[in-house]
Amino acid sequence: MSTAKRDTYTPETLLSVAVQVFIERGYDGTSMEHLSRAAGISKSSIYHHVAGKEELLRRAVSRALDGLFGILDEEHARVGSAAGRLEYVVRRMVEVLMAELPYVTLLLRVRGNTGTERWALERRREFDHRVAALLKDAAAEGDVRADVEVRLATRLVFGMINSIVEWYRPDAPDGRDGRDGRDGTGEREVVDAVARLVFGGLRKAS
Amino acid sequence: MSTAKRDTYTPETLLSVAVQVFIERGYDGTSMEHLSRAAGISKSSIYHHVAGKEELLRRAVSRALDGLFGILDEEHARVGSAAGRLEYVVRRMVEVLMAELPYVTLLLRVRGNTGTERWALERRREFDHRVAALLKDAAAEGDVRADVEVRLATRLVFGMINSIVEWYRPDAPDGRDGRDGRDGTGEREVVDAVARLVFGGLRKAS
Repeated sequence: MSTAKRDTYTPETLLSVAVQVFIERGYDGTSMEHLSRAAGISKSSIYHHVAGKEELLRRAVSRALDGLFGILDEEHARVGSAAGRLEYVVRRMVEVLMAELPYVTLLLRVRGNTGTERWALERRREFDHRVAALLKDAAAEGDVRADVEVRLATRLVFGMINSIVEWYRPDAPDGRDGRDGRDGTGEREVVDAVARLVFGGLRKAS
Repeated sequence: MSTAKRDTYTPETLLSVAVQVFIERGYDGTSMEHLSRAAGISKSSIYHHVAGKEELLRRAVSRALDGLFGILDEEHARVGSAAGRLEYVVRRMVEVLMAELPYVTLLLRVRGNTGTERWALERRREFDHRVAALLKDAAAEGDVRADVEVRLATRLVFGMINSIVEWYRPDAPDGRDGRDGRDGTGEREVVDAVARLVFGGLRKAS
């Protein structure tokens, strides 16, 4: 544990280490001792940055929530047909999920044992409701099928999008099968695939 | 801990208690002591039925895997167009997931720390590959879109289906909003919703 290492620690780097530990051990199973060991700094150094592990959790899930709610303020999420806005939001949700992968992963694993976890769940529900409202408007405008109940459709679409955290790894992207010789992270391919499946389904357009 | 209670214990009831404990505490976090307390029988009574907690895990995930693999042997999964067989398999997957909810939930949470867990992951992958092969055949027959890579499409479709374990509860079914005054579990509504979204997407059929 060198002084140099300790000196370079910022709230940001501590947060990224904490998120990894929370994901690996679960938030309940993580102690300040685990965080101290993973970060390579003393517990008192951690307390210099934050009040405790719950503050780290709050900062981590806030980052994910801010990313998601931020989408709804973007112009394309506010202007145009509800179906167009919905498609924009779905695409951006996938982008934010991949860009903030560990933070969104942690958010999706929150269970509600502490005040911070319950707050995070409440904010998630609020986001779900905002997207469900968009889906409802799109159905009312006649652009979205009316034979799947809005809440159920929202849950299934969120289920598909959120499942990406289970397998997507930026350094080992899926979908790079070399068909078109393209390099890169595969992010665009995942976004396009989700948008195609969510709106058009598997069936070939006739 | 009455003798009567102990006498009524069967491997089946022990299994169903163990699965609940594994889901709540995680398999790693579950001790024989936890199982003994939850089942209300002594540890030696448990050892009368099984060699240890890993055998309980194996039996539990086997039940889920047998349910899933069983689908592939059913007539409608073997006869007809690939697209038709695929739709049948997707519908049946949702049915099996809801019928064997705790067992499938546990299967989906398996992480791979023990031999049994690694075996379960390997069987899951095998099932995924069988369904991916069906999707590939459907694409070759021209019934499924070719602009989403098969492996990616399979992952996203499984993601949608598997996410049902996060919210579906047989005693508090989703989708009972009273629109059609229907009673019942809502199972049929979930199966239909998944089939509609997976094959047709959200966009209204024109």
